[in-house]
Amino acid sequence: MDKVKELEAMDKLFDRLFPICRSITGEGLRETIEILSEYMPLEVFGEPTGKQAFDWEIPKEWVIRDGWLKAPDGRKLADFKSSNLQILNYSTPVQTKLSLAELEGHLFSIPHLPEAVPYVTSYYKERWGFCLPHCEREQLVEGEYEAYIDSEHIDGELNYAHSVLPGETDREVLISTYICHPSMANNELSGPLVAAFLYNRIAKWSKRRYTYRFVFVPETIGSIAYLHRFGTEMKQNTQAGLVLTCLGGPEPLNYKLSRSGANPLDHIWQQLLERGELEGKTRPFTPAFGSDERQYCSPGFNLPVGQMARTVYGLYDGYHNSLDTKEAMTIEALQRSVEELERLLELNEAEGYYVNRSPYGEVKLDKHGLYPDINSPINRSQSSNEVMDNRRQLNIILTILNYADGEHTLTEIAELCRSSIAAILPFIEQLKEKGIIEGPYAEKGRLFK
Amino acid sequence: MDKVKELEAMDKLFDRLFPICRSITGEGLRETIEILSEYMPLEVFGEPTGKQAFDWEIPKEWVIRDGWLKAPDGRKLADFKSSNLQILNYSTPVQTKLSLAELEGHLFSIPHLPEAVPYVTSYYKERWGFCLPHCEREQLVEGEYEAYIDSEHIDGELNYAHSVLPGETDREVLISTYICHPSMANNELSGPLVAAFLYNRIAKWSKRRYTYRFVFVPETIGSIAYLHRFGTEMKQNTQAGLVLTCLGGPEPLNYKLSRSGANPLDHIWQQLLERGELEGKTRPFTPAFGSDERQYCSPGFNLPVGQMARTVYGLYDGYHNSLDTKEAMTIEALQRSVEELERLLELNEAEGYYVNRSPYGEVKLDKHGLYPDINSPINRSQSSNEVMDNRRQLNIILTILNYADGEHTLTEIAELCRSSIAAILPFIEQLKEKGIIEGPYAEKGRLFK
Amino acid sequence: MDKVKELEAMDKLFDRLFPICRSITGEGLRETIEILSEYMPLEVFGEPTGKQAFDWEIPKEWVIRDGWLKAPDGRKLADFKSSNLQILNYSTPVQTKLSLAELEGHLFSIPHLPEAVPYVTSYYKERWGFCLPHCEREQLVEGEYEAYIDSEHIDGELNYAHSVLPGETDREVLISTYICHPSMANNELSGPLVAAFLYNRIAKWSKRRYTYRFVFVPETIGSIAYLHRFGTEMKQNTQAGLVLTCLGGPEPLNYKLSRSGANPLDHIWQQLLERGELEGKTRPFTPAFGSDERQYCSPGFNLPVGQMARTVYGLYDGYHNSLDTKEAMTIEALQRSVEELERLLELNEAEGYYVNRSPYGEVKLDKHGLYPDINSPINRSQSSNEVMDNRRQLNIILTILNYADGEHTLTEIAELCRSSIAAILPFIEQLKEKGIIEGPYAEKGRLFK
Repeated sequence: MDKVKELEAMDKLFDRLFPICRSITGEGLRETIEILSEYMPLEVFGEPTGKQAFDWEIPKEWVIRDGWLKAPDGRKLADFKSSNLQILNYSTPVQTKLSLAELEGHLFSIPHLPEAVPYVTSYYKERWGFCLPHCEREQLVEGEYEAYIDSEHIDGELNYAHSVLPGETDREVLISTYICHPSMANNELSGPLVAAFLYNRIAKWSKRRYTYRFVFVPETIGSIAYLHRFGTEMKQNTQAGLVLTCLGGPEPLNYKLSRSGANPLDHIWQQLLERGELEGKTRPFTPAFGSDERQYCSPGFNLPVGQMARTVYGLYDGYHNSLDTKEAMTIEALQRSVEELERLLELNEAEGYYVNRSPYGEVKLDKHGLYPDINSPINRSQSSNEVMDNRRQLNIILTILNYADGEHTLTEIAELCRSSIAAILPFIEQLKEKGIIEGPYAEKGRLFK
Repeated sequence: MDKVKELEAMDKLFDRLFPICRSITGEGLRETIEILSEYMPLEVFGEPTGKQAFDWEIPKEWVIRDGWLKAPDGRKLADFKSSNLQILNYSTPVQTKLSLAELEGHLFSIPHLPEAVPYVTSYYKERWGFCLPHCEREQLVEGEYEAYIDSEHIDGELNYAHSVLPGETDREVLISTYICHPSMANNELSGPLVAAFLYNRIAKWSKRRYTYRFVFVPETIGSIAYLHRFGTEMKQNTQAGLVLTCLGGPEPLNYKLSRSGANPLDHIWQQLLERGELEGKTRPFTPAFGSDERQYCSPGFNLPVGQMARTVYGLYDGYHNSLDTKEAMTIEALQRSVEELERLLELNEAEGYYVNRSPYGEVKLDKHGLYPDINSPINRSQSSNEVMDNRRQLNIILTILNYADGEHTLTEIAELCRSSIAAILPFIEQLKEKGIIEGPYAEKGRLFK
Repeated sequence: MDKVKELEAMDKLFDRLFPICRSITGEGLRETIEILSEYMPLEVFGEPTGKQAFDWEIPKEWVIRDGWLKAPDGRKLADFKSSNLQILNYSTPVQTKLSLAELEGHLFSIPHLPEAVPYVTSYYKERWGFCLPHCEREQLVEGEYEAYIDSEHIDGELNYAHSVLPGETDREVLISTYICHPSMANNELSGPLVAAFLYNRIAKWSKRRYTYRFVFVPETIGSIAYLHRFGTEMKQNTQAGLVLTCLGGPEPLNYKLSRSGANPLDHIWQQLLERGELEGKTRPFTPAFGSDERQYCSPGFNLPVGQMARTVYGLYDGYHNSLDTKEAMTIEALQRSVEELERLLELNEAEGYYVNRSPYGEVKLDKHGLYPDINSPINRSQSSNEVMDNRRQLNIILTILNYADGEHTLTEIAELCRSSIAAILPFIEQLKEKGIIEGPYAEKGRLFK
């Protein structure tokens, strides 16, 4: 798929998913998974209401059919059919008439964003309510209001889906995103869209060292349920991972470090930034704010999982309200995310420990066509720039060979070359092709085994 | 005992102890222990003269009955009965008449503090001598002087005392101070007074995790003799320790780190200072200067023992001379020391590793009444400050739960919360009461045992 | 040998070695070893042409008898007999007449140093050529030139030599230098000269803790061949090592750290510089630039070997050309190198872990004549400077005794004394003589064994 077609396809998928009323359970969630499964093979799971998942219990499934709030003059102030954000997500049913004073506790708006309809949820406490622009709320007059929500909480299930793309080894890269947010763009259709198209790119790689696990869950309860089912094998196999969220918007990539801050993607990311190979920002790991990395990084699992965003939740006006639209985010930004993440994961494929097969004394480079055969300060047939370039390349090759001792990672070797991984990778490939080095190995200490 | 009564009691004890002529052995030492034993239960030990204690030998006991120096005109220049500092501590007996020139080598004074009588000792080399104000010494005229010291060195014993306050575990906190200094206030009646009243406070705690060992010894030889008897069990059991000295005076607490600088009290202390919870200063560990921490931290024992002072030895005019009086020090400062040390030890009781009992995925906080049940940017019933406070508290709780993994100490968890131990302790207590976390444990790595 | 005689002897040896046409094999190499063997016992080795040494093969031996280049007017532009640098080192034979255009590819000169004859080698690719000053090259006119080189590549051998000076233990210090460079002074007669005279100094030490291995090899292929024969035992025994190169010139010593940067000589060197005991500069380890330390530090061996220079290769005009003369370097600088290296190795003899034999409580210093026997602020018989000196010495002694715990190296103990190794060594010796401490031990953790 070329880049133009990819962009069109992303745009089309966005438009199909945007209107759906999603929640942590229910029909909208299933419909979303079904549409995504047209783009990649997805295995779908359902956990029944009431099932225990660690400290949590799968909640009742939410059925929402209609809802509106009528002013004393009969005008509809909120209407599920025109915007699902206007009904409190997970609202209990209601059909009643009440005064403005009685209504107040059931209304939600944002004083500092008077035009925006807020996104409000109440999953674990029974409530009903309506969300509306603050400017409209300010106009409300005394009188009799009519509230109507046709919803139900039934014994049903919580759904999620995954796709496992096999590689040469069982070591896995986790890509996880969430599909419980209703009609908002950056947070959160950006994550599922990027994940789906990233899947398609990685599926086309000529070889994959790692297995790639793509996970689509409702946030928090979904990743907890997923870990309850798959956590043991993930703890065994996960080499690296990313939670994808808020990947639209004009900002550069913004990476939240994994819990230890010392996993392969943490090192690769930081080196790319330090060496100016990628524009980006870095956030520390925080267990209290964020998305599903908080579950993957809970102390019992402690997976090497970070989180990638651009326009970060909580830091933009449209966060969790109706201003979070496709236009504010752009599909182009999503495609840029796909590209940058693909590049990051390509580099991660090469991370690990390398082993020089001739570790005793220097390798005789000219035998392998890797060394100038004359030792002269000036050779008229070469320009001074050529001499510099040759010297720099020779420096990289000799430095790689010295530190390909089974004790230094690719990132560390690149640092010792005063280069980025990206810059030394062609040399690594060349040395591998010539049979001079082996790797990457996941474990340290292979040289003398 | 309320604070006013405590202060009066400290003042009274000070006045009883101050006049006694103490040394590293002898009657004054025993009398001091006897008086202290009215304030706390004390077990008294005596090591006989000539007994070997590691590289040292218990010296002969010093008996001092009287002593004076008479000028040619018969005036008493020094007189044991008016001030015991005027006789060289551990002086041999003498009864002789001699010229001023012959006398010079037996006189001690401080040129830059002409009014002060210095405190001079000669425990391990036989000498006699007198200490006097330099201004008086400058007035001495030629003529016949008469020196008289009625002392004896007998086969006796070296005494020390301790009190062990049992706790829930055998792990011990050592509080050690010294009782060999004669009539001086800051250095050193402050240590024994603070120790005695600190004992009484800790004895009233509703529970003690640790056992508390209070030790009163003559300095150096006393702590070496004590270690000779109890060192093996102390090496086994000591969790933390403090040598108390120079705890009067207007300065804030001044902590000398333990030998490794990485023991629990070192960490707690430094965090309290960094987080502004306590005013204080920190000194590095030095094996060459100081008090009995030099013995506890000798390489064969290497106990986790620091030293706490205020107005540090050597750094004030009254150091080791007659200017070191109650007025220059104040009983109020001693009481402040008691309070601050009690607080420090309370925090130390909570130091250690904590374990989250639901480490897989996040704890379902609302089940435990620890989470706001609605996820809304603005809730009219809450002020914006309340929202901030709730968010901050939630942040602390979630951060504690993530790092209660058996791998992080309380001090480390507090740092990860960007708070002090003191600030997070109420949350730790709450989570323990609700059965969500366990701890503190002394050993790392409990989560998956 | 006194210093004046040593200097004369160095000067004489220099003059004997300078004119010889050395290469990585051949008669000049053997002659050089023979002359050196008059100054120290040398065992000589020969590796036959064609023998494999790790990734390398011993090349054919180069025989060079004569060579010259004649201008169209019959004038000699280059002449082996007047300067061996004028013939490309390892040149194939040639006897031909050719035009200036045909000659160009066989000429080497340095445009920015028009008076200098460059030193050019082509060991592993068959070539012939002449080296000449660029100013002369610029004058060459069209016409017929005559090139004549009477050389041969024969099945012969590659030679190297070593001398092992036994010490109390099998632990070895390696001193390696190279003898393949023809008529140049700083790079490289300085290394062999310094090595030979350093040998003679160390041979006179009253005792040697370590065995000293002095190695003279042709660069790169020689050290690889040497490692092929002795590498296994060197890997077992080497405690420290230095490659000596470029040790003439006015600059201070310039040390290239060993591969880990954390070997004993690295620590000693850095402390001497930090404490101002030695003037010098430090370079990081680089596997791509330098001399035989690149072989000793190849990943399969990873010996604790650094490199010592003054006027570093590549950083002075005379590098690898005829400007590198005795006058530009000076024999005095070589002698200074001998002295400074001897001092460094003396300190290295004392490096290691020390053990206090009375580790429980303080040592009773007065018993051993190491402590003032009176504790008095002012003693009229001592000046205030004496008091300060005594206090400083006591501080050093007590600090040594505390950290002589089998866990701290001498360098670390010196740091804890806020002193240099050199400054605390007299105290270490005194404490050893009195039987109070033991050491140095190479291994950590001896205290409680």
